Amino acid sequence: MTDYTPTREDKFSFGLWTVGWQGTDVFGPSSRALLDPVEATYKLAELGAAAVTFHDDDLLPDEDEREKVLEKFEKALAETGLAVEMVTTNLFSHPVFKEGGLTANNREVRRYALAKVLRNVDLAASLGAKTFVLWGGREGAEHGAAKDVQAALDRYAESLNLLCAYVQEQGYDMRFALEPKPNEPRGDILLPTIGHALALISELEHPDMVGLNPEVGHEEMAGLNFAQGISQALWHDKLFHIDLNGQHGPRFDQDLRFGAGNLRGAFWTVDALQGAGTGKTYDGYVHFDFKPPRAEAEDGVWESARGCMRNFLMLRDRVQAFRADPEVVAALEAAEVPTLRTPTLDDGESLSDLRAASYDVEGLATRSVGMEALDQLALEHLMGAR
Amino acid sequence: MTDYTPTREDKFSFGLWTVGWQGTDVFGPSSRALLDPVEATYKLAELGAAAVTFHDDDLLPDEDEREKVLEKFEKALAETGLAVEMVTTNLFSHPVFKEGGLTANNREVRRYALAKVLRNVDLAASLGAKTFVLWGGREGAEHGAAKDVQAALDRYAESLNLLCAYVQEQGYDMRFALEPKPNEPRGDILLPTIGHALALISELEHPDMVGLNPEVGHEEMAGLNFAQGISQALWHDKLFHIDLNGQHGPRFDQDLRFGAGNLRGAFWTVDALQGAGTGKTYDGYVHFDFKPPRAEAEDGVWESARGCMRNFLMLRDRVQAFRADPEVVAALEAAEVPTLRTPTLDDGESLSDLRAASYDVEGLATRSVGMEALDQLALEHLMGAR
Amino acid sequence: MTDYTPTREDKFSFGLWTVGWQGTDVFGPSSRALLDPVEATYKLAELGAAAVTFHDDDLLPDEDEREKVLEKFEKALAETGLAVEMVTTNLFSHPVFKEGGLTANNREVRRYALAKVLRNVDLAASLGAKTFVLWGGREGAEHGAAKDVQAALDRYAESLNLLCAYVQEQGYDMRFALEPKPNEPRGDILLPTIGHALALISELEHPDMVGLNPEVGHEEMAGLNFAQGISQALWHDKLFHIDLNGQHGPRFDQDLRFGAGNLRGAFWTVDALQGAGTGKTYDGYVHFDFKPPRAEAEDGVWESARGCMRNFLMLRDRVQAFRADPEVVAALEAAEVPTLRTPTLDDGESLSDLRAASYDVEGLATRSVGMEALDQLALEHLMGAR
Amino acid sequence: MTDYTPTREDKFSFGLWTVGWQGTDVFGPSSRALLDPVEATYKLAELGAAAVTFHDDDLLPDEDEREKVLEKFEKALAETGLAVEMVTTNLFSHPVFKEGGLTANNREVRRYALAKVLRNVDLAASLGAKTFVLWGGREGAEHGAAKDVQAALDRYAESLNLLCAYVQEQGYDMRFALEPKPNEPRGDILLPTIGHALALISELEHPDMVGLNPEVGHEEMAGLNFAQGISQALWHDKLFHIDLNGQHGPRFDQDLRFGAGNLRGAFWTVDALQGAGTGKTYDGYVHFDFKPPRAEAEDGVWESARGCMRNFLMLRDRVQAFRADPEVVAALEAAEVPTLRTPTLDDGESLSDLRAASYDVEGLATRSVGMEALDQLALEHLMGAR
Repeated sequence: MTDYTPTREDKFSFGLWTVGWQGTDVFGPSSRALLDPVEATYKLAELGAAAVTFHDDDLLPDEDEREKVLEKFEKALAETGLAVEMVTTNLFSHPVFKEGGLTANNREVRRYALAKVLRNVDLAASLGAKTFVLWGGREGAEHGAAKDVQAALDRYAESLNLLCAYVQEQGYDMRFALEPKPNEPRGDILLPTIGHALALISELEHPDMVGLNPEVGHEEMAGLNFAQGISQALWHDKLFHIDLNGQHGPRFDQDLRFGAGNLRGAFWTVDALQGAGTGKTYDGYVHFDFKPPRAEAEDGVWESARGCMRNFLMLRDRVQAFRADPEVVAALEAAEVPTLRTPTLDDGESLSDLRAASYDVEGLATRSVGMEALDQLALEHLMGAR
Repeated sequence: MTDYTPTREDKFSFGLWTVGWQGTDVFGPSSRALLDPVEATYKLAELGAAAVTFHDDDLLPDEDEREKVLEKFEKALAETGLAVEMVTTNLFSHPVFKEGGLTANNREVRRYALAKVLRNVDLAASLGAKTFVLWGGREGAEHGAAKDVQAALDRYAESLNLLCAYVQEQGYDMRFALEPKPNEPRGDILLPTIGHALALISELEHPDMVGLNPEVGHEEMAGLNFAQGISQALWHDKLFHIDLNGQHGPRFDQDLRFGAGNLRGAFWTVDALQGAGTGKTYDGYVHFDFKPPRAEAEDGVWESARGCMRNFLMLRDRVQAFRADPEVVAALEAAEVPTLRTPTLDDGESLSDLRAASYDVEGLATRSVGMEALDQLALEHLMGAR
Repeated sequence: MTDYTPTREDKFSFGLWTVGWQGTDVFGPSSRALLDPVEATYKLAELGAAAVTFHDDDLLPDEDEREKVLEKFEKALAETGLAVEMVTTNLFSHPVFKEGGLTANNREVRRYALAKVLRNVDLAASLGAKTFVLWGGREGAEHGAAKDVQAALDRYAESLNLLCAYVQEQGYDMRFALEPKPNEPRGDILLPTIGHALALISELEHPDMVGLNPEVGHEEMAGLNFAQGISQALWHDKLFHIDLNGQHGPRFDQDLRFGAGNLRGAFWTVDALQGAGTGKTYDGYVHFDFKPPRAEAEDGVWESARGCMRNFLMLRDRVQAFRADPEVVAALEAAEVPTLRTPTLDDGESLSDLRAASYDVEGLATRSVGMEALDQLALEHLMGAR
Repeated sequence: MTDYTPTREDKFSFGLWTVGWQGTDVFGPSSRALLDPVEATYKLAELGAAAVTFHDDDLLPDEDEREKVLEKFEKALAETGLAVEMVTTNLFSHPVFKEGGLTANNREVRRYALAKVLRNVDLAASLGAKTFVLWGGREGAEHGAAKDVQAALDRYAESLNLLCAYVQEQGYDMRFALEPKPNEPRGDILLPTIGHALALISELEHPDMVGLNPEVGHEEMAGLNFAQGISQALWHDKLFHIDLNGQHGPRFDQDLRFGAGNLRGAFWTVDALQGAGTGKTYDGYVHFDFKPPRAEAEDGVWESARGCMRNFLMLRDRVQAFRADPEVVAALEAAEVPTLRTPTLDDGESLSDLRAASYDVEGLATRSVGMEALDQLALEHLMGAR
């Protein structure tokens, strides 16, 4: 039996808020005791993680204790060798952000939100994080007139432009990654999908400094194919970071451990991260953003974390075997998949030539596409049946 | 009682395939006789439309009859004064496109598809259409490995670049509009939402020549807020055309008449087209892309078409009353909606100043946002209760 | 303009937990101060409610204060004339129920849950409530093997049988109403829809004592038509109670005020409660179970409560005008809607006779069904345009 | 490597309409030539099926040829040894049923539909089929007023009562199985889920003669957990038949081959059919109701059929290994899953005793539930990683 023990080379990373989630939801208070984020750091190192990430509030909830906690945290990093690869700002928990942060209607709130991000950018830089994530969970509205969407996008762009300018000015080696989500906790959230966020980035002053941090469950809440989404992000050179977890389609944000939920989707996600054979690949940290179910006690928290990594390794193993299997290579050929990389127009050919050509329309209409055969091979690799 | 009779100034436009749909679906054959597209043109004019649109195959199914049909059609246009404001190519019905058109794995199919579009671009130009829509209904896959997404986006971009170059070369006054859809008839379709299509456009050689033709139901099939989506498209100056219809959330593509389905969404859609008060507006044709339910006989076809226009006029009336109501203006102020247009940073202010400022966080956290009150006013306007 | 001020005759009822919701969700803590439930009772009376309802924990969180609070509450009821029409037990907030209450795997938890319900049944009886609701929000699982579904249904039935026997034994005038929900907070909840709960009831020892308390949003989270669902419940004589609110299809449980969300659905819901013209009707309290959005301050809480009642009255007005409109009556005839009440087989007719008859299949296939025309009339009534 | 070749003992059964689907959908005509149903029967036998099923129209489209086709078909059955285990009537394709069959508003249509079913019941009996399926795909409506739901349920019940009486009178050994579906092709279909159909059955004159034929994709279109649904059907002794296929959550009806789509759901489905370890089991035919994707040529049709069976066998293998694994047995114990079979009240215990007992609420609240650990074992069995 293959060993699926994670190592540092696997570049697994965890948000401190994931194992630290105490189980509070709309229908009940916390079910688990507070987990000290520094203790969590040691534990994640022990389990095989290579890095941790956090929102300011996850680690540093109390202003007075800030320096002391930071010191302890940096000691933990030094002792474990873990990196802080990404930092993000919580602009959604405190009720001051109840109606938005960077795009709140209230201008004082927007200013306070921006100041909070800036402070955290400094912290991130000081800890060596090269990615700064922005999830605008409260940027949106329940109702149509409550949010002037065009103005909100102006404000979103303004904030991002200011942040990029600041990072440049400070000489930080840092990029921003936007995290799209369609809804929850707001009725409709701005930048609801990978696509919408990519589009916004194209209008920024420093589009090269801003990319994406897509999350499996967020796209699947809109019924979208996550592997297809991140492939488009890779195509745009915008997959700066990733949030892996599990979800069962359009419903509340489940944040299941990676592999749970849509398993076939998880297989194609790992495949897409590796360029689906021949495309651009993702070389960053493999970051998990999940919530151990509220029902679990602390043992379940760590089971869940372990499962995320183990499932990634099992899936990577299956994906690699799939891509290396000569029958798969033949099936891909039969399905003409590699042909899609050939331009439609010949080099130097004119459109008139193309129009003048004759096409065997009926022959093409009845051709075999061989996609069921190909997919069956994939399914069997996923199930370890080949 | 207000009169909701459409006039040419309302710029209503109909796809000939809408009233012409015979009711064939996965579970049964056609339920209605073929409707002559030229007869439909006269009828739509009589009902108050200002323009018609078509796929090549809707109007010109038979090669031999092509010239004759075109002549009859142009006579109808001349007699009714209807415009052909948009033309599109059918790259999804003929089984030659069963696995895609412009992004089919098979290169001959891609070439044939491109030739078919080019021919139709010429026809569109000759009829004076200024918008050319591309809906890639078969561009996608049922399964992960069947489509190399990064290569497919290369091919999509290649095709659009070739088409733009052709239009420029020919000197046509024409722009392209992409129509996103998440799924159906393919398992997952490329460019599944407004956002993904906007993102692709930003990578093209002539991004100014390509925009969007969003459809209400297509975004709502992904659970997305259509008004928010088209507001983002307007913000990008990319709302080149629109497809209005009705849908009940994530399920099969219902193509209900406009107003049926999500009525509150329809109200905000009309509001968004008018810039939601102060933003960029849509000034193009109001185009309906619906299917009269298969159960209906021909009388129901025309009821359905009439309903689309009548509902738009009723909704426009309600939206205008809403925006003009002094109580609404006050409620918008109370909800600080107009404030969002004010930049977050003062002119000339530095980020250090912003960070140095003090914020009344607790006061802001408990502020009134007044959005339920505002939305209740909107609902009452929609229901004609004010 | 019609006056839409609620009166006691309208039988509006509110859960104390609705206006009392402080805004805690998965992504942030409370945004509003605690609302004293007794104060809320006075306020709801002032707004026009006829009754209040509660979970034990909403009103009586502290064991020591129990008698004192109850006394204050009963005084408020006496002074306002409000009834307590329904009571329910909270089996979902305390982490003891994190993995279920009446169907928890742990038997001690099940016993504790049952004892908690029994105590509350006594309280409900003492306050004159005739309906006791059971929502099993934590009865379910995230994963397949975690819950033995057949055993769980045995336990559900056991609990309901015990509760019915207890009520009979005590001579209480009380019926139970099950509240279905598909998911959230658990991954999948037992008895996910109206149908599943109706089915369970048919297997109980006292099926006459158990009915339903369907909630708009819960059915719409599964993409189901709520009006159709409660019509089936009425058909089974099982619509014992109702929870009105608003939702935007499959996503997290939004609990919007009634009328917000799916407005067309709300119109048909009010129509269905009135028997859709000729069927069995609902004569119970019109109960709202919504959450004022977390962004709102206290003013928004009351706006939201007011809106629920006002929207119901506006919709009832529109529905009654729709059903009374002679054009609608004619359109219903044209659509052959009333004919469906005529049995398919004639009285005394044999199936052989029916088989021997000849049918004009082609004529019937092309008949007009007139449903678009009928629906357009409904839409115009809803919009106050007729 | 295990051999996953199907045998007759596996009791695999296929609808003739599945491999016979020619690919016609809303967006295009057929992509495959007509497959002779008798030829398909031979081919399915060769692939390992044990039985076939059909709608009248699949096999016998032409009245004149009826006897001749039947003769050929019976010869094929005799030669292959295949059974006809189920028959069903097409009440959804011909436009005469465009607005419903057994619950059409038009009474002549209802009578014609009933006559069509009766004729087919005779045929089914003559072929030895013991299950007769009824899928009411057109029984429903697009809009609220178009269908009087309570009257429609009266007609549904009337039809089922007549059919049961007929079967009894004729002495046929046959039971009926209702197939629920939430929507498509109608906007909302009556009896949208397993639960709603179970509820209707409880009101019939011969409830023992009517059960269910649930379909994976139909429940998943409503976001429901299929394994949970069929477990409830088993609990009611109502799982008379099953339709296995694949789906990706709320969207159009995909009818993918079994195993494609929600693979984790497929694992739990196979487990549920086997009683999830200790419950009532399904012993009927394993029936596939899928559609080979329209893009496929005939080779893909058979790949798809082969895949259905192979995936079932692989999953059954995994499920059995999961249930037999001592670590799983221990994990089930740790999660207290078997305890749920123990009644909540002791034999002879009174509710007063239960109320008088003391409960360690805080201890129970912090207990380990061990469900993540259990689910991880399941996932690893599914992936063949144990």
